[in-house]
Amino acid sequence: MMDYALLLRTFLLRTARYYPKKEIVSIYPEGVFRYTYREYYKRVCQLAHALKSLGIKRGDRVASVALNDNRHLELYFGVPCYGAVLHTVNFRLPQNHFVYIINHAEDRILFVDEDLLMFVEAAKDQLKTVERVVVLSHTGKMPQTSIKDIVLYDDLIKDFPEEYDFPADLNENDPAVICYTSATTGDPKGVVYSHRGLILHTYAVATTLGAAESDCILHIVPMFHANAWCAPFAAVILACKQILPGREVLNMEKLCRTIAEEKVTFTCGVPTVWMLLYDYLEKGGWHDFSTLRTIASGGSAVPRSLLVTFNEKYNFPIIQAYGATETTPMVTCALPKSYMKDWAKEDLYDVRSTVGIIAAGLEMKIVNNDGVEVKMDGKEWGEILLRGPWIANEYYKDPERSAVTFADGWYHTGDVGTIDEEGYVRLVDRTKDLVKSAGEWISSVDLENLIMSHPKVMEAAIIGVPHPKWQERPFACVTVVSGQSVTPDELKEFLKDKVKASWWIPDDFVFLPEIPKTSVGKFNKRELRRLYAEGQLMPPKAAN
Amino acid sequence: MMDYALLLRTFLLRTARYYPKKEIVSIYPEGVFRYTYREYYKRVCQLAHALKSLGIKRGDRVASVALNDNRHLELYFGVPCYGAVLHTVNFRLPQNHFVYIINHAEDRILFVDEDLLMFVEAAKDQLKTVERVVVLSHTGKMPQTSIKDIVLYDDLIKDFPEEYDFPADLNENDPAVICYTSATTGDPKGVVYSHRGLILHTYAVATTLGAAESDCILHIVPMFHANAWCAPFAAVILACKQILPGREVLNMEKLCRTIAEEKVTFTCGVPTVWMLLYDYLEKGGWHDFSTLRTIASGGSAVPRSLLVTFNEKYNFPIIQAYGATETTPMVTCALPKSYMKDWAKEDLYDVRSTVGIIAAGLEMKIVNNDGVEVKMDGKEWGEILLRGPWIANEYYKDPERSAVTFADGWYHTGDVGTIDEEGYVRLVDRTKDLVKSAGEWISSVDLENLIMSHPKVMEAAIIGVPHPKWQERPFACVTVVSGQSVTPDELKEFLKDKVKASWWIPDDFVFLPEIPKTSVGKFNKRELRRLYAEGQLMPPKAAN
Repeated sequence: MMDYALLLRTFLLRTARYYPKKEIVSIYPEGVFRYTYREYYKRVCQLAHALKSLGIKRGDRVASVALNDNRHLELYFGVPCYGAVLHTVNFRLPQNHFVYIINHAEDRILFVDEDLLMFVEAAKDQLKTVERVVVLSHTGKMPQTSIKDIVLYDDLIKDFPEEYDFPADLNENDPAVICYTSATTGDPKGVVYSHRGLILHTYAVATTLGAAESDCILHIVPMFHANAWCAPFAAVILACKQILPGREVLNMEKLCRTIAEEKVTFTCGVPTVWMLLYDYLEKGGWHDFSTLRTIASGGSAVPRSLLVTFNEKYNFPIIQAYGATETTPMVTCALPKSYMKDWAKEDLYDVRSTVGIIAAGLEMKIVNNDGVEVKMDGKEWGEILLRGPWIANEYYKDPERSAVTFADGWYHTGDVGTIDEEGYVRLVDRTKDLVKSAGEWISSVDLENLIMSHPKVMEAAIIGVPHPKWQERPFACVTVVSGQSVTPDELKEFLKDKVKASWWIPDDFVFLPEIPKTSVGKFNKRELRRLYAEGQLMPPKAAN
Repeated sequence: MMDYALLLRTFLLRTARYYPKKEIVSIYPEGVFRYTYREYYKRVCQLAHALKSLGIKRGDRVASVALNDNRHLELYFGVPCYGAVLHTVNFRLPQNHFVYIINHAEDRILFVDEDLLMFVEAAKDQLKTVERVVVLSHTGKMPQTSIKDIVLYDDLIKDFPEEYDFPADLNENDPAVICYTSATTGDPKGVVYSHRGLILHTYAVATTLGAAESDCILHIVPMFHANAWCAPFAAVILACKQILPGREVLNMEKLCRTIAEEKVTFTCGVPTVWMLLYDYLEKGGWHDFSTLRTIASGGSAVPRSLLVTFNEKYNFPIIQAYGATETTPMVTCALPKSYMKDWAKEDLYDVRSTVGIIAAGLEMKIVNNDGVEVKMDGKEWGEILLRGPWIANEYYKDPERSAVTFADGWYHTGDVGTIDEEGYVRLVDRTKDLVKSAGEWISSVDLENLIMSHPKVMEAAIIGVPHPKWQERPFACVTVVSGQSVTPDELKEFLKDKVKASWWIPDDFVFLPEIPKTSVGKFNKRELRRLYAEGQLMPPKAAN
């Protein structure tokens, strides 16, 4: 067979040439912007010329500090197809990390949304490698700024030719994108995505979830969060209509209107968003989900009760999936197998409340503390190890932490899980979030899900706290459904016949207005532990 | 990303481990044989041990002379995952070619179906490299034979362990399969398929045609004809239920029963088979196609009228596709784009009667005699050139013919086509089958399709024959629908307002009981030209 490299270029050209009429829709405060792949491609070509004019060389890093919109999508293909590397910056990080990742990636150009310029403005004196700041502006106006030599993106590219001869001689293992993931301790860690990895991941997404040209994909996940799970790459590769909701992504009414008006079929998101949506729907919010076919959910678990409600009450068919920034991210999807279609509803929800079965192309093993694979019995726990062509093999310029995580040719996920006889994986916990009580492990995730299945509970996060006698004990942080109230005793009573053993029941519950979250919407247990250590999480005395 | 090779092993292990209950169904004269992927995998492992015991080394070739059945499917994965190369021998070739390809591939072991042993028996003294003949027997009995040291496959493998440690250190570009394609002149040409090519092809098939775990795939295309279009690889990779119809593949009643009973959703085939099916259906043959979702057709064109009849009268939705042994084979598929769904029926059939749009992952250009790309206007003709990761880059050990066909990094298909503004390709002809009349080109394929749209015509093949004045003239060989008759004058009248110009109308028509076919079911125009040259194709005098 030909020695033909897997490059994004091939797919960009195919979509531009054979699907030029398909639409890209970008939602701005001023209104909805639409253009076709024909027009998109012209601007991607102009961008490539602009990168050349700025002296960007192959392999150079270029940063985006941007939301989900069409200009960001132009960077997604323009930068890698030119031969450079797009660094999708998470601007929600603390400022020291924001500065760190841009300096660490040695970004030469920084593309920033006009509404996010303050992040760059605040950090500008600490950015050591950025030579030029380019403003992605939807209003066409340059904001007030003290940054020198700044230019509007549209002005930068507008006079360049609308065709560009994208290089076909890149290596498929060349970097296309870099994205940082926050670490439990220390600086964020960079994950580099190759052309090959992005393309194989797209093929696997299409193969597993049936994503196709006929899909209309709504990008809810931020394009700086594991690159919106690389769905924008899949969408261009498959020539899908795509919707970029920009600033309006957490406006549930607008989101529901968009889904109906644009006939969205496919979307991805984290449970935090589904929680907001649930709240909106329960208040009678308008919606029409009849076009939706696939809703991939990852990042953390959707409680089973919510899965059922979404599916049955709202015709919103959530499919749980599992992955990480290090895995591009799709690893598993909880789609029932074809022969399960006649199974009883409850059994199907058992399947759908797992994180699913491994995608075709990857290898997984779940190993116990002795490195021995656990039985496929749905009971034995172990750490999930992965390998495959869209799994990272290192953290960028970070040999020390790479050596720990990518040992023996496997990615050690730090996730603890079980696998059942059908091959479905259930996440038990993060290795570091397991609670060790009297020498026995308690899964914080299992416990959280049990508590969240209480009708009055909105969210629940469990941390292990030191205990003089039992070593550690689970400690529950709970938010209550608005307008409701619940007591620790009620919750203890509720858990009694549900937990694996009575010593799983937390001694203490604290009720918070909200659970602190990480920049990507997960429970921030590090913050909860800090608050606990500082004595700020005191259980209500009355209930003890 | 990890340097993780794309190997069949990964996918075989995944299917065996996570989909062990899915079924493989093999149809024998004695009855239907069924087993699961769990049992399939055990025998594949035993086969690998047997190959080792026979001294087969990495890269060695091993031949199969076999039909579409479960033992052949075991070879499909057992041989490449072991690290050797499976040569799927076309036993319908003339004996000299049959001998040539086995000697040329230097096959060390030859696996042969008990019912095909006569081919090997007849050739055995000429086979220079075959050390051992193994009989794939469904009856369990060794047939009468003079071949020495012959052994039954089931006996060969039965005592080996049911687990094998398939090598993970193969290179993804290592050969997995070799298959020969007959040439217009000279010996057949070998095409080598790599692990990488087979896997990327499968991903593309899944992405383009939506093939998935839920599909039940019926293999109609012989497993020695471009490896049944590599659908058996796709079926195992995707963990599909699959049906291997063996000897019964051209028994239309049985085929229709099988489709209904096994709930077949996906199949592939050549128009010759659809013609037989059409005949069966028109005679009122029993059928129930309600489970069929995708029917890929390639090799030659399905006349538009037949496409309409199959679709509307029989709910048998044929999708035309294009490819060749050199292309694994999927290149294009004639699926309408999503925005065409509201188009008028006739316009949709216009789309569906093309060979389609190029699959995601390949590059195509159609160039005229000056090497300039033709316009996307559906009119300009040119030769189709292809490149991509599942396109061959040479003929095996044949540098001379390779240099002609695989020049400048492109595969020169020898097919002449047009491309319309939507990107759909229409085949006009083979470069060598175009008829040059008075300096102008006539497409034999267009002309054949026009003639075949006559209700009394079953098949029509056009060849160019020498003419003293016009250089060449089209000559029509026609078979008539059974029980019907038609005259040349009727056909000329019928063509009058349909052809592009009056000089397209053939001067002569000859009526044959059948059109000679190649071993893979295409019109054998070489044979027709030979018959014409020998004066054996005389038009009926009465009609002149």
